[in-house]
Amino acid sequence: GVLGSGDFARSLAVRLVCSGFKVVVGSRNPKRKASLFPAAAEVTFQAEAVKKADVIFVAIFREHYSTLCDLADVLAGKILVDVSNNTEINHHKESNAEYLASLFPACTVVKGFNVVSAWTLQSGARDGNKQVLICSNNQEAKRIVAEIAQVMGFTPVDMGCMSSACEIENIPLRLLPAWKIPIFLALGLFLCFFTYNLIRQVIHPYIREQKNKLYKIPIEVVNTTLPCVSYVMLSLVYLPGVLAACSQLYYGTKYRRFPDWLDQWLQHRKQIGLLSFFCAALHAVYSLCLPMRRSHRYLLIETAVKQAVEKKMTIWVEEEVWRMEIYISVGIIALGLLSLLAITSLPSIANSLNWREFSFIQ
Amino acid sequence: GVLGSGDFARSLAVRLVCSGFKVVVGSRNPKRKASLFPAAAEVTFQAEAVKKADVIFVAIFREHYSTLCDLADVLAGKILVDVSNNTEINHHKESNAEYLASLFPACTVVKGFNVVSAWTLQSGARDGNKQVLICSNNQEAKRIVAEIAQVMGFTPVDMGCMSSACEIENIPLRLLPAWKIPIFLALGLFLCFFTYNLIRQVIHPYIREQKNKLYKIPIEVVNTTLPCVSYVMLSLVYLPGVLAACSQLYYGTKYRRFPDWLDQWLQHRKQIGLLSFFCAALHAVYSLCLPMRRSHRYLLIETAVKQAVEKKMTIWVEEEVWRMEIYISVGIIALGLLSLLAITSLPSIANSLNWREFSFIQ
Amino acid sequence: GVLGSGDFARSLAVRLVCSGFKVVVGSRNPKRKASLFPAAAEVTFQAEAVKKADVIFVAIFREHYSTLCDLADVLAGKILVDVSNNTEINHHKESNAEYLASLFPACTVVKGFNVVSAWTLQSGARDGNKQVLICSNNQEAKRIVAEIAQVMGFTPVDMGCMSSACEIENIPLRLLPAWKIPIFLALGLFLCFFTYNLIRQVIHPYIREQKNKLYKIPIEVVNTTLPCVSYVMLSLVYLPGVLAACSQLYYGTKYRRFPDWLDQWLQHRKQIGLLSFFCAALHAVYSLCLPMRRSHRYLLIETAVKQAVEKKMTIWVEEEVWRMEIYISVGIIALGLLSLLAITSLPSIANSLNWREFSFIQ
Repeated sequence: GVLGSGDFARSLAVRLVCSGFKVVVGSRNPKRKASLFPAAAEVTFQAEAVKKADVIFVAIFREHYSTLCDLADVLAGKILVDVSNNTEINHHKESNAEYLASLFPACTVVKGFNVVSAWTLQSGARDGNKQVLICSNNQEAKRIVAEIAQVMGFTPVDMGCMSSACEIENIPLRLLPAWKIPIFLALGLFLCFFTYNLIRQVIHPYIREQKNKLYKIPIEVVNTTLPCVSYVMLSLVYLPGVLAACSQLYYGTKYRRFPDWLDQWLQHRKQIGLLSFFCAALHAVYSLCLPMRRSHRYLLIETAVKQAVEKKMTIWVEEEVWRMEIYISVGIIALGLLSLLAITSLPSIANSLNWREFSFIQ
Repeated sequence: GVLGSGDFARSLAVRLVCSGFKVVVGSRNPKRKASLFPAAAEVTFQAEAVKKADVIFVAIFREHYSTLCDLADVLAGKILVDVSNNTEINHHKESNAEYLASLFPACTVVKGFNVVSAWTLQSGARDGNKQVLICSNNQEAKRIVAEIAQVMGFTPVDMGCMSSACEIENIPLRLLPAWKIPIFLALGLFLCFFTYNLIRQVIHPYIREQKNKLYKIPIEVVNTTLPCVSYVMLSLVYLPGVLAACSQLYYGTKYRRFPDWLDQWLQHRKQIGLLSFFCAALHAVYSLCLPMRRSHRYLLIETAVKQAVEKKMTIWVEEEVWRMEIYISVGIIALGLLSLLAITSLPSIANSLNWREFSFIQ
Repeated sequence: GVLGSGDFARSLAVRLVCSGFKVVVGSRNPKRKASLFPAAAEVTFQAEAVKKADVIFVAIFREHYSTLCDLADVLAGKILVDVSNNTEINHHKESNAEYLASLFPACTVVKGFNVVSAWTLQSGARDGNKQVLICSNNQEAKRIVAEIAQVMGFTPVDMGCMSSACEIENIPLRLLPAWKIPIFLALGLFLCFFTYNLIRQVIHPYIREQKNKLYKIPIEVVNTTLPCVSYVMLSLVYLPGVLAACSQLYYGTKYRRFPDWLDQWLQHRKQIGLLSFFCAALHAVYSLCLPMRRSHRYLLIETAVKQAVEKKMTIWVEEEVWRMEIYISVGIIALGLLSLLAITSLPSIANSLNWREFSFIQ
């Protein structure tokens, strides 16, 4: 049974019908809404639909849960699946599923399917890996809903008892939580190093020698800032591992929990490393663009003209040549290695490596 | 039971034996063919094999289906699995499975396994995500074959009744259907802009000033064409969304179907976007190659010599310098953002994002 | 039941409890170890734990298997799951599982779960695709353990009878086996071509004309070596296919096994191709860096000064200009095509292509 006639209710009905289930849809206006649902699904009044079904998907907004109270008698003993989502993290004190359970104490409430979008439901889980997180206080009800999810082509994941509902409801609302700290860290480092390089390359020569080098800001100052950020970030990837090892050696046990800040840090290493790679890659692109600029061209011609007028034929400085050749070749090798690390962090490649291979590459 | 002794029949037998099934292979020449099959599979005459098996995989070409008509009596009541593929899309009026069903009305025919290659069968579905699309008019037979597929390590997907067989048979024959329109669109746009730039940069100066600038064709003309194509493609990614929103506002409902052309357009956005990124990336590489060219070098030296002979020391044009610096730095940032979009369209990464994260990045 | 109290035993207990199993942990010092396990798991003495459980995970090092001999009586008739790993490939004559089976002939031993890390166990198989390879001589025991693995969220893969245990135990120890030969091949080719180019570009001019061009070694010599390696590797990708086709034509059958060296070669094509792409990409980056170097700048200014002093105004060589333009544009197109090939070899993309699409792109 499906209660509701929104997008999600319709997609749910489509998917259930496709998976071979008999579906009854309960609506307050079955005649008008029938056209929205697949022909194989029976659309009827709510009370009737509830009577015919054993497992009922409640695809209604939390605000309208109370409108179901008239059906409390027919709902008694049924399994209610709460598929709702909130619009804000921790919007209400108790999770939607717990609120539903408190309204209908005679029903068994199962939380699930909220992490799946209406689109995924309708198009089928063809690209695999689509998990449905399920929780409930009743093992049997959880088992039944998990089985339905499996037949529908999803992978049910048991998240334990109802107290996890709040966590499950927050999952579709999270916004790249693991990236927040690393991104602010990178921005902070960028600002610091940018200010330093701005003073050193633009403001200082201006004050000292009255030279206007403002044109250096968009490319050259940014380009000297990026590798600094990249280096510091890369060292921040490997530092917490060293600290963790020291802590284990100091306390003489590996079963002692790390302090929270170290734990957090260890968990953000992948993101910090990827941002370090991103800065290094940007630095490579910026550096490659240097000889394309007009300013590079003008400086080159100016030097050539000066030399020609003064009839100086040799300007070859062996040391400068060597320094540059070695800078560039070491830079390319470092970028190649970082790229390799970044590629192995793609989920589909990381999954195909065993632990020994992964740590070898790292 | 497996009928046939081709590559697919052998791989099927290997996989079935490995998955713990008892396999009987029916061949017209069992003695000669026995060596091709795994030792655990019994190879015997067709009639005998059919008698011993309940589920029979028909791994024979459509053209030879009629040779099985002698076995019609022993086949009666069995489940026949049609694993055949065609060589052309919609080659025959009716699908192979429907043709088989019409030949043996006393059997239950199930279509399936045709989307799996002999190679995948033999090596096992170790890299996961391998789906087996199944359809049949008989729910029970479909369930049995789906179970066999699951034990073999595949993910059975129920595609409904026999009328879907034609669609399932076309799947292994399709050739990047979602890419055809976007690629022709990109080629068309490229041709238009290339012609325009050719006239503007090569033909016009030749006619007007008799200057031979043909050398610009392979790199400079292409390089000014690519960003135009990229821009137009990128705008075509976001335009249909705006049109769809307008249509919804105009009709005041989101349940009205979009016109077919808009629907098609909306579905091709990802491919158009990736081609736009591809053009932008090529433009970046072409631009980076500019200072490597001989022509760039010659022009530079020529300017320097002219300046030196005329003893002009200053050629610095502040405005040109700034324009170039800003062009390049904005270009790099745009490419970085487009790369991010392209990376999140990789299936393994897109799967790990929830809807809110995906739309945030977009 | 779980015997042992190491990392793996604990993670196993956590996962089993989360999947809804009743878990008994057997330890020699249950009081001290109880705090390490989840509250829902009962921690008791080994003999007692064994009595209460039907399926017992032996999470103990091979060296300590013999300490379980006192429990032989209570263990009789139970299913023992050997989850152990070795530290070296083929460290012992017989696999750990076979050794365990020889110690406890009255038990049914199943090998499994060793390819899963403690970390994956604890965090749950949320990112999917995690396979558990299982083997045993007893079909029923294998089925029971496979079911446990499925409920835990893993994909059990039947690897046949106990003789496969050795192979399963070696899997977590393998170190990119498919990459070894291609990498040594690439290094070998690089060394050969590097030596040749070193002699040609540096040593020969030094001996002949006493010109010191040592500065060319880090970038220019490497940059002329990389495309040679890339070309030879690319040809080695397509050569074995041609040889295989010839062999099939010569023997007039496609059922004859290829010689071992050809078989090996055919299986390494993907890795050889990716290394070829890696060399080509490095060559592109090196080439793009050429105009950034000081040496390039000095040579440019020197030429300009020489020309200015001699008042030669024209240095344009039409042929050289055209050669360079065509070199670069063909190079970019080749790199673009190779990138496309490399991207389609990512597992998550290759899985979404059918055979016809894959061979079209190749």
